[in-house]
Amino acid sequence: MNEIENFLAHKAYNMRKWSIVQTSQAGSGHATTCLSAADIMSTLFFYAMRFNPRNFNDPNNDRFILSKGHASPILYAAWKEVGVLTEQDLLTYRRVDSVLEGHPTFRFEYTEAATGSLGIGLSIGAGQALCAKMDKRDFNVYVLMGDSETAEGSIWEAVEISAHYKLDNLIGIIDCNRLGQSTSTLYGHDTKKYVDIFTAFGWQPFVVDGHNIKDLMDTFDKARAFKGKPVIIIAKTLKGYGVAAVEDKEGFHGKALAKENLDTIFDQLKARFSSAAHYSSDYVWQPKVPKKVSAAIQFAPTDINMPKPNYKKGDKVPTRKAYGQALTTLGDVCDRVVSLDAEVKNSTFAQLFEEKHPDRFVQCFIAEQNMVGMGIGFERRGKIPFISTFGVFFSRAHDQIRMAPLGHASLRLVGSHCGVSIGQDGPSQMALEDISMMRALPNSVVLYPSDAVSTYKLVEKMAGYNDGISYLRTTRAATPVIYDNDEEFPIGGCKILRQGDDDQICIIAAGITLVEAINAYDYLVVQDKPVHVSVIDLYSIKPVDVETIISVAQKSENKIITVEDHYREGGIGELIAASLCNTEILVESLAVSELPRSGKPDELLALANINAQAIIDKIYELV
Amino acid sequence: MNEIENFLAHKAYNMRKWSIVQTSQAGSGHATTCLSAADIMSTLFFYAMRFNPRNFNDPNNDRFILSKGHASPILYAAWKEVGVLTEQDLLTYRRVDSVLEGHPTFRFEYTEAATGSLGIGLSIGAGQALCAKMDKRDFNVYVLMGDSETAEGSIWEAVEISAHYKLDNLIGIIDCNRLGQSTSTLYGHDTKKYVDIFTAFGWQPFVVDGHNIKDLMDTFDKARAFKGKPVIIIAKTLKGYGVAAVEDKEGFHGKALAKENLDTIFDQLKARFSSAAHYSSDYVWQPKVPKKVSAAIQFAPTDINMPKPNYKKGDKVPTRKAYGQALTTLGDVCDRVVSLDAEVKNSTFAQLFEEKHPDRFVQCFIAEQNMVGMGIGFERRGKIPFISTFGVFFSRAHDQIRMAPLGHASLRLVGSHCGVSIGQDGPSQMALEDISMMRALPNSVVLYPSDAVSTYKLVEKMAGYNDGISYLRTTRAATPVIYDNDEEFPIGGCKILRQGDDDQICIIAAGITLVEAINAYDYLVVQDKPVHVSVIDLYSIKPVDVETIISVAQKSENKIITVEDHYREGGIGELIAASLCNTEILVESLAVSELPRSGKPDELLALANINAQAIIDKIYELV
Repeated sequence: MNEIENFLAHKAYNMRKWSIVQTSQAGSGHATTCLSAADIMSTLFFYAMRFNPRNFNDPNNDRFILSKGHASPILYAAWKEVGVLTEQDLLTYRRVDSVLEGHPTFRFEYTEAATGSLGIGLSIGAGQALCAKMDKRDFNVYVLMGDSETAEGSIWEAVEISAHYKLDNLIGIIDCNRLGQSTSTLYGHDTKKYVDIFTAFGWQPFVVDGHNIKDLMDTFDKARAFKGKPVIIIAKTLKGYGVAAVEDKEGFHGKALAKENLDTIFDQLKARFSSAAHYSSDYVWQPKVPKKVSAAIQFAPTDINMPKPNYKKGDKVPTRKAYGQALTTLGDVCDRVVSLDAEVKNSTFAQLFEEKHPDRFVQCFIAEQNMVGMGIGFERRGKIPFISTFGVFFSRAHDQIRMAPLGHASLRLVGSHCGVSIGQDGPSQMALEDISMMRALPNSVVLYPSDAVSTYKLVEKMAGYNDGISYLRTTRAATPVIYDNDEEFPIGGCKILRQGDDDQICIIAAGITLVEAINAYDYLVVQDKPVHVSVIDLYSIKPVDVETIISVAQKSENKIITVEDHYREGGIGELIAASLCNTEILVESLAVSELPRSGKPDELLALANINAQAIIDKIYELV
Repeated sequence: MNEIENFLAHKAYNMRKWSIVQTSQAGSGHATTCLSAADIMSTLFFYAMRFNPRNFNDPNNDRFILSKGHASPILYAAWKEVGVLTEQDLLTYRRVDSVLEGHPTFRFEYTEAATGSLGIGLSIGAGQALCAKMDKRDFNVYVLMGDSETAEGSIWEAVEISAHYKLDNLIGIIDCNRLGQSTSTLYGHDTKKYVDIFTAFGWQPFVVDGHNIKDLMDTFDKARAFKGKPVIIIAKTLKGYGVAAVEDKEGFHGKALAKENLDTIFDQLKARFSSAAHYSSDYVWQPKVPKKVSAAIQFAPTDINMPKPNYKKGDKVPTRKAYGQALTTLGDVCDRVVSLDAEVKNSTFAQLFEEKHPDRFVQCFIAEQNMVGMGIGFERRGKIPFISTFGVFFSRAHDQIRMAPLGHASLRLVGSHCGVSIGQDGPSQMALEDISMMRALPNSVVLYPSDAVSTYKLVEKMAGYNDGISYLRTTRAATPVIYDNDEEFPIGGCKILRQGDDDQICIIAAGITLVEAINAYDYLVVQDKPVHVSVIDLYSIKPVDVETIISVAQKSENKIITVEDHYREGGIGELIAASLCNTEILVESLAVSELPRSGKPDELLALANINAQAIIDKIYELV
């Protein structure tokens, strides 16, 4: 072995040791998974990757994503060896006061992507790699996957799309250690299987002995040199490599080695990797710092000032179309905005953005998981990703969406075709649980505009919201413009649309049901015995403006009806009722309570008991 | 063309016509998608498939799944040609009073699988095919997919697992019409690409001209004869085939042809398919009725009587382990029970079932979407599938789970490792939104036991619940057995665990927080100034026993504290607060309100403010 090989073997040795130390100290964690990856990680960090260890945020650094997030100790060990963590830091692994968590999260600032739900790292990497192409930066993205996680379909979505975009700056590595959690993986050590599949999808595969430093170096060199296709390195390894008691054996996944055995284990390790253990050399590691100097990537939102919209009151415009228009204008004033589409751009109106800004529009095809993952990647490289599809199909990417906050990724999600009001296409296409799903995300914002002006303004607000996921729910049908183009829509606000001195009840609605609420108002007010009602447009569902709601309700005889095109559970009604539970205010909720069916929008609103008539009936019951 | 070919061409012609008629009459729907598939469908229904058209439920019938569910008119057209639907029926397509919905649902009884969310049909088919092997039935399962939907990762999960299980009774067909909704598909008409990928995964591919009846017949013959691998037929077709104005053209996805043009279009169609249009023959179709006679498949749950459990009060048993034990016993008394695992059987304790009933245990590897899809397939063939993984990873299959009720599939889902109490593994592994997600499913049941006895009993109840999805939430930590082995746990009930004459407040808890609630009780009752509290075990979250809760609260000074190891949104607290909003009862909720981290279970319960101390503090604040 030459100098650099000796050095890398030594680093791998240290990383093995640190992985064992961390997990044994914590009494839990995935030691054997780290041992299979140590040589790969050593070669990656100290040979293959070009990065500035003193500036993690250098926009030209290669990026590293640990998709097999349970191997977090090897990630922390690598950064220990780079010099940004100390042994003392490592000993805090998994402690409640430590940033070194069981699976990497944003709390450890060198975490490129929060992982731990398997199969999502490659999508994030694909997003970063495509972003590099978009920004003409020449960094590479390395994604280390476990072999078990290649069973996840999300991996294959990322594989398809990365091939489509010829992401030759994306280098995947499979730590092919043969063993899953409780049994062998689908393909075991059959590396040819991986070669065949990746080749068929349009990737360039390389098989390597994952415990041979020289072989790893050569392979990483070939991977970097390869152009025109994404590269996959299938590294044949042994789980638990280096510790005879667990090496290549079932039954040791996710198990720390007993602390009392460490002396023996380290003696064995020293004997096994004798020269690496007794390494001594004058060799000084020279990080391959990127030569290119370019502007730092901006992460906090810029001051975004969109021109006023130009809608005409009374015109009918679907909010999904207003979204497309707003996004296009947003793209004019902010070049960090990118649009990701799951092959429904003509339904969500993302196509308007594509027409104006084709270079910042990313067609992700019908693969929602990967789309959201790529969005996370774009966000990590300073973009403001707006990700749109049918609202209901975000359920396909629920896990990726759930993981985004763990990496502090502020995704902007826009779901069209919400509720039964989409009509004839039927229940499979109706978002009826999206409010519930999006509300449950920590720090999320859930917005649900009812007209074009509020949609437009809320898109601008979303661009500026950087503390979590923001979700905009749009409607298929055209709804009347009801607001002045000057109106402002702060996140966490609501609009009192109708209010009088003699209100007997307050209707809270949003989106399509706001139209119904106003129809109910118009009907009730002209009756011989008119009923006076206040009407609130709850365009911001999370955060929700409880204060205003209470104050309006108190002037409306302490009565509220909520009405929503969404299932009862986790929706607006439950939210309002729960928020006002400890007040005197009575809350009755109209919501979708049964599995809907195909039919005309009006028929379905009636069937679900959420149309103007249902509101009127309920009001007569209550006043 | 020979007699049968002429007949099939004629049937295809009719199906084309019916597809156009349905969509034009409805004014919406996916006509062009049907036109590409007509020849495939004709050959399938009238040549390839063996089924008894007079007994759809014959357990030996071949099964057909329309994965490209938006092509529902061609499905209805096929059944019209078989003779189970009339022209009048077809004219109701998409009407609110029709069972012929925009995408097929259970309301049309010949729907094998509810589809419309793309990419789920192959998993359902894989489940059925594996079920056939399990039951030694020799039916084939045919799954017709769109080419666009092969971008979905769920397809590749099904592909991997079907190859693993060598499901040579599963025949996939790709209607490769090149055009997606708004743009070309990833691979267009490059059929070789599909061949390469499927071959690499271990399938047997056949490429066919999807508009050549003879070619289709030969290929279906080859597919049926092929043994040892699942078969994929890549049928090269043209979208809109037969109608010149739309054939092979972009911009016509999901668009009905204008009614006023139908005369012209039908004239053109007649000219184009002259002999098929003017077909006249004495040929009588002989359906290939399965010869094998075997017992009808049972769908309604049998009377399931599990023996009493044998737990000892005070022993500590994780509910996840009790689940594994209960499932094993359930398997003893009911041979329709199957267990599906996503390679975490040693965490969920599904491995106990595997050890006892290896022939009914299905390893689905880390591919949750396909696992749930296969579960739907098993359920459709009369099994009682229990599908288990970490609770949080059901978010990966949220869309498949959401679709299950549209096909009336009563899945039994069991999610382990819920909440922050899992500890050091950190937030990526914690189910904190599962209650919310599962509650929002129509007709779902959500159960959350706190000890081994209730877990055991609830598994029995789940086996008997056949009207929707039932979800059981289990806990990682060992919790004390608190119930007698005789205790019963009806769905929709709750248990009053502590109650006295002077209760000042009622604590509602479930799972791990019930332990904390009892600890709080034990502490408060022995203080110098004791606080008397009632305690309810809310093991059934949906349906919820509001009546009992109100009655206990009324005897507890009209005060309730809920405490749960779940996010606030959509959880127990919101549910109870919303349910009691219009009563005098005060409801305060303790729930996880911030993104958690790694740490010891006790530390995390404390950090999240949901431990005994937090309950005690809150009670002192309120009494």
